[in-house]
Amino acid sequence: MEILELTELAQKLFDDIRALSSDGVGVTRDSYGAGESAAADYLRHFAEQQGLRVEPDRVANLVFTLPGDDSGRPAVWVGSHMDSVPQGGNFDGLAGIVAGLLCLVEQKTRDQPSATPLRVIAFRGEESAWFGKAYMGSGSLFGKLSAEDLELKHRTSGKSLASYMQQVGADVTAIACQEPLFDKSAARAYLELHIEQGPIMVARKIALGVVPGIRGNVRHNRITCVGEAGHSGAVPRWLRHDAMFAVADLITRLDEHWRVLLERGIDLVVTTGIVGTDPSEHSISRIPGTVHFSFEARSKSQDTLEGFYQLMRTECRSISRERGVTFEFDRRLESSPATMDEKICAELARSCERIATPYEIVPSGAGHDASLFANAGIPSGMLFIRNENGSHNPHEAMDLDDFMLGVRVLADTIDHL
Amino acid sequence: MEILELTELAQKLFDDIRALSSDGVGVTRDSYGAGESAAADYLRHFAEQQGLRVEPDRVANLVFTLPGDDSGRPAVWVGSHMDSVPQGGNFDGLAGIVAGLLCLVEQKTRDQPSATPLRVIAFRGEESAWFGKAYMGSGSLFGKLSAEDLELKHRTSGKSLASYMQQVGADVTAIACQEPLFDKSAARAYLELHIEQGPIMVARKIALGVVPGIRGNVRHNRITCVGEAGHSGAVPRWLRHDAMFAVADLITRLDEHWRVLLERGIDLVVTTGIVGTDPSEHSISRIPGTVHFSFEARSKSQDTLEGFYQLMRTECRSISRERGVTFEFDRRLESSPATMDEKICAELARSCERIATPYEIVPSGAGHDASLFANAGIPSGMLFIRNENGSHNPHEAMDLDDFMLGVRVLADTIDHL
Repeated sequence: MEILELTELAQKLFDDIRALSSDGVGVTRDSYGAGESAAADYLRHFAEQQGLRVEPDRVANLVFTLPGDDSGRPAVWVGSHMDSVPQGGNFDGLAGIVAGLLCLVEQKTRDQPSATPLRVIAFRGEESAWFGKAYMGSGSLFGKLSAEDLELKHRTSGKSLASYMQQVGADVTAIACQEPLFDKSAARAYLELHIEQGPIMVARKIALGVVPGIRGNVRHNRITCVGEAGHSGAVPRWLRHDAMFAVADLITRLDEHWRVLLERGIDLVVTTGIVGTDPSEHSISRIPGTVHFSFEARSKSQDTLEGFYQLMRTECRSISRERGVTFEFDRRLESSPATMDEKICAELARSCERIATPYEIVPSGAGHDASLFANAGIPSGMLFIRNENGSHNPHEAMDLDDFMLGVRVLADTIDHL
Repeated sequence: MEILELTELAQKLFDDIRALSSDGVGVTRDSYGAGESAAADYLRHFAEQQGLRVEPDRVANLVFTLPGDDSGRPAVWVGSHMDSVPQGGNFDGLAGIVAGLLCLVEQKTRDQPSATPLRVIAFRGEESAWFGKAYMGSGSLFGKLSAEDLELKHRTSGKSLASYMQQVGADVTAIACQEPLFDKSAARAYLELHIEQGPIMVARKIALGVVPGIRGNVRHNRITCVGEAGHSGAVPRWLRHDAMFAVADLITRLDEHWRVLLERGIDLVVTTGIVGTDPSEHSISRIPGTVHFSFEARSKSQDTLEGFYQLMRTECRSISRERGVTFEFDRRLESSPATMDEKICAELARSCERIATPYEIVPSGAGHDASLFANAGIPSGMLFIRNENGSHNPHEAMDLDDFMLGVRVLADTIDHL
């Protein structure tokens, strides 16, 4: 059986899972919640129908294998995540799982599976949108989720991550102890296919990208600027401690620093995804006393992350002095930048050449489960698929032909590792 | 009976009305809602117990008079408003009504009431916090509330101002036709006692202030900046259309213009009381595609208001070009600046001198019902009472002795008009 014969199956998987996780605007597959679990149930049922084996790992991710995979030889792992952001797109995460499953389905039709066993892993909890923390499903396999992380609260229900993970069967006691729950000796390599989340490949008209590295990030879910509320008409500028003007000042300064750093060739993006005055004191005629905002910087360089973070803190101190406000910081969260394995990158590139598909080297601005495997010392590689309109929104648009090209490269690479 | 003998009565009124409108944090007397109506019921009951006459006017404000007030002679009107902002303070508005009522109670004990009849008016709907529009109760008396205004939606229920006004008995048909509902020939003067809402009188250690004029304002309840959502890690700065960075840029530019204008001696305050990214698309890793914010500028000068408003629009256009975002504006709302009557100001000052109390001339940064009377051509005056911690917050702190000094000046001024 040729991989391309599975095109219709791929379409059906994408369509069915989109339908079951539709929220009327986009798709919502909430980490460790109903949406993600519905996708997991569907995938488990699908795999069983195809004669594949499915088992949850100790943190409630799903692992798919061929029925005869009992050799104990180190495997090639292919994975990505099932969850999405609220009102997100269908392909971010799901594409990588479907790609892995198609490779398994194709191998099952062979007389002889590939020399190196193939295992597909569907992660839960990759998106930070739900608990303010990313890579929960892959991170917990490597002892990277702490007891403190497990106390993070869900964005709407306010219940703890621990309670959500427990409900789907994860061993939260082991996670809290930061026990390693993935046997590294069982992994020869980790591969992940993912849609590009930026506009670069569309602009360059290239369907496939080989990813040399993944940006790390430094974040605060919630910084609070505390000023002093007051009547907008009655407090002159020199007596004001306007929390909103202070935060606007901070964002503008960060934007200026960012621009200057880019001119010096430094890799960096800066985002304040959530900003708001306090709804309980909302009035057009009240000087905002409190503003909450999130902060995120991403870079390929750990030094840049640390440097920009300190610059942000310095600007907060300067604005505090100038405007008589204070900044309160919740816990600093970090993900390390990761480098993909050179040999695997070369193999992905050779596969592209073998099937005569042009590719480019495209660094990943967004974080991925692959970075956890790479930073755990497992040789890792990523393949990007062209995708319009970015990700984390309902308008993601991946062409199925581009996707199937990627699946061919993935299958071919697996056979050559 | 001396006015000062009524100190305990004043205390009881403030305490009782605070208790009935407490929300656990501050007081909430929602315009045309349950909180304001509860205060109105209390005041009506109190006045009747004191042997005063109480009637609603055609827009559901309460008018208090002495039983024998049937001469038809032009009266001195004393008024202020019953409503508060959410989680507001007890004295903003209420102080002026209590002051007027104490004057009526004192006059009732005299053999002969003052030559000019005294009428006290307790307005509904002065605060813009509930429907995004201020001076609804006083404005509708002068045909200043339009059919369009009546369609404004309540901040939480979403129901129209018309439905709220109708429910408390206002003649919304007459209001919608902008019919004048106040007989100006029945008013010789309008006086209003109000707490100072800024920090000036506390800083200068002066209990009483005579107000020469009231700032006007220009507002938008909701301006929407529309950019383009995207994945924070995957979209480089040159391809971003970050709505939050655009709004921060705008606020910072407005702040700089404001600072420069102040240095040139121009009267101006600028506030963005409500600012926020869209909660339905909140994610730390999503570039904000939409930001809503309010805009308000206040000045004694109509020219400054118009000039600053146009400057704001120009900066929006400039930011639109530079950052690839658009700004969408809801209806522009305005209140004209008002000048208090010189003779009444002089009389208030003479009253302060008669009771040997120091006073200062303190312009009003905040708007008041008095500006509607002044701009309708009725000679008007305002007396400020020292107040700590500003207004529109639960920490308003007016000293009862300061208040009673103000009531003495008010009563004395009424006798001399």
